[in-house]
Amino acid sequence: MSAFDDDTRVWPGDRPGRYTGTVHPAWNIGANPNGGYLLALAAQALRQATPNQPDALSITVHYLRPGLAGQPCEIDTQVLRSGRTLSTVRATLVQDGSARMELLAAMGDLGAAGSQPPPVIALPRPVLPPPEACPGRSASAQGVGLPILNRLDIRLHPDQAVPGAAGEARVSGWIRFADGRAPDALGCLLMADAFPPAVFGLLGMVGWVPTIELTVHLRGRPAPGWLMGAFWAQDLRDGRVIEDGALWDADGQLVAQARQLALVRSPDGGAKAPG
Amino acid sequence: MSAFDDDTRVWPGDRPGRYTGTVHPAWNIGANPNGGYLLALAAQALRQATPNQPDALSITVHYLRPGLAGQPCEIDTQVLRSGRTLSTVRATLVQDGSARMELLAAMGDLGAAGSQPPPVIALPRPVLPPPEACPGRSASAQGVGLPILNRLDIRLHPDQAVPGAAGEARVSGWIRFADGRAPDALGCLLMADAFPPAVFGLLGMVGWVPTIELTVHLRGRPAPGWLMGAFWAQDLRDGRVIEDGALWDADGQLVAQARQLALVRSPDGGAKAPG
Repeated sequence: MSAFDDDTRVWPGDRPGRYTGTVHPAWNIGANPNGGYLLALAAQALRQATPNQPDALSITVHYLRPGLAGQPCEIDTQVLRSGRTLSTVRATLVQDGSARMELLAAMGDLGAAGSQPPPVIALPRPVLPPPEACPGRSASAQGVGLPILNRLDIRLHPDQAVPGAAGEARVSGWIRFADGRAPDALGCLLMADAFPPAVFGLLGMVGWVPTIELTVHLRGRPAPGWLMGAFWAQDLRDGRVIEDGALWDADGQLVAQARQLALVRSPDGGAKAPG
Repeated sequence: MSAFDDDTRVWPGDRPGRYTGTVHPAWNIGANPNGGYLLALAAQALRQATPNQPDALSITVHYLRPGLAGQPCEIDTQVLRSGRTLSTVRATLVQDGSARMELLAAMGDLGAAGSQPPPVIALPRPVLPPPEACPGRSASAQGVGLPILNRLDIRLHPDQAVPGAAGEARVSGWIRFADGRAPDALGCLLMADAFPPAVFGLLGMVGWVPTIELTVHLRGRPAPGWLMGAFWAQDLRDGRVIEDGALWDADGQLVAQARQLALVRSPDGGAKAPG
């Protein structure tokens, strides 16, 4: 087993549809658990609620309050509609008596990597230097402790590794588990929110960019190897940014798309604290 | 008052958080209520649940079963977190004893049209011929009755008006209420899902393209006049397509972004019926 499997494990709780787990501090960004890690943890409960449909074809999470690193959690799931090829499920992750995340997902079965018919249309994969030529995501460049970098090996395009250097709201690079675990559909949920915020490329390091809502569409199970990720923003106004992103596997297959609404508190971004 | 206001009106129901309304058949695509109309109807209940935060900064809907045109509905809302600038709400729309839609939204206040600071980044508006030079969306070109065209005036780019003619999964054009009602944030929810499916441009008329999940981000309240819409797909595989879209107002302001996961049942699209 890998650290990711260990740290996202959930167990049946004290009533039907309830699961329990722990928010491990190893996946923190500063003092807060990474949103992608929390999403993967909650998705483990969704998978148990729909065991024949393990893959999130669409999953939306709203972050109500920051997760509490190192503390137990309960995840309450409710299957809203159970179908032959698709089931719809909602879930709430609770810590210390407060709801931290609310989720809504369409669960299905993507089949084994490579088993799907070829795509009719697919978002083209960008051209990047190989991982060996890309510097690692750096805690010092971001001015925040990044315990998550002990768990994930994240390499950034050389022109985008320093906040503000790109001159545009775009970041791309490579990602894999640090312990050699192969990527899978669950890992894609984590990796869809593990790169630095794309707005850092335009605005420089503007501190925590809290996610209000994140939607990930899983499109295929990844082949073993590095995943390539690209994330960009084309819409930043009044302190709220829409960030789009995608992940491709080592075979060049598009395996996930992601979009999130996040808050940018910098003066340049039209800062406003959430309330 | 306008037809849209009349047909999306909801009233407080028999317990706190419950609202009642009617799914009017005037907004049908064939025999089924349009998904954007159902979204706007449900959003009226969300607005009443968070009266100081009338705008859906992010709203996700999962369509569990088709809506029943001409029949009453109940919308049960639950405020998950109530904040100063942002509240998170979920809702379920029920008809004839069955849940038809499940919704999850972050509600806020976009302020009056033109009151926001200018965007830092904004998705550029495409260049289109003026509405007078764009043919109307045609029921005969789609092979289905479109009662909704009595309520909405939809003009398509001349190169994209006939399914299959564009040779790419893209549709763009203009949209407004047929009775002259000005667009607003609520109307944008409808108009984010009122154009023909973008895949028609590539595959031709492939029948009903049922939406599994739709997420709309409202970005600004529109100025009076026509809205411009553009919708495109860059990811179609195994019978499932991701369609992206955006709306701009008459001043050129980006007012909404949308993304949906939908089923394409044509052989070309890798058809598979939902179950």
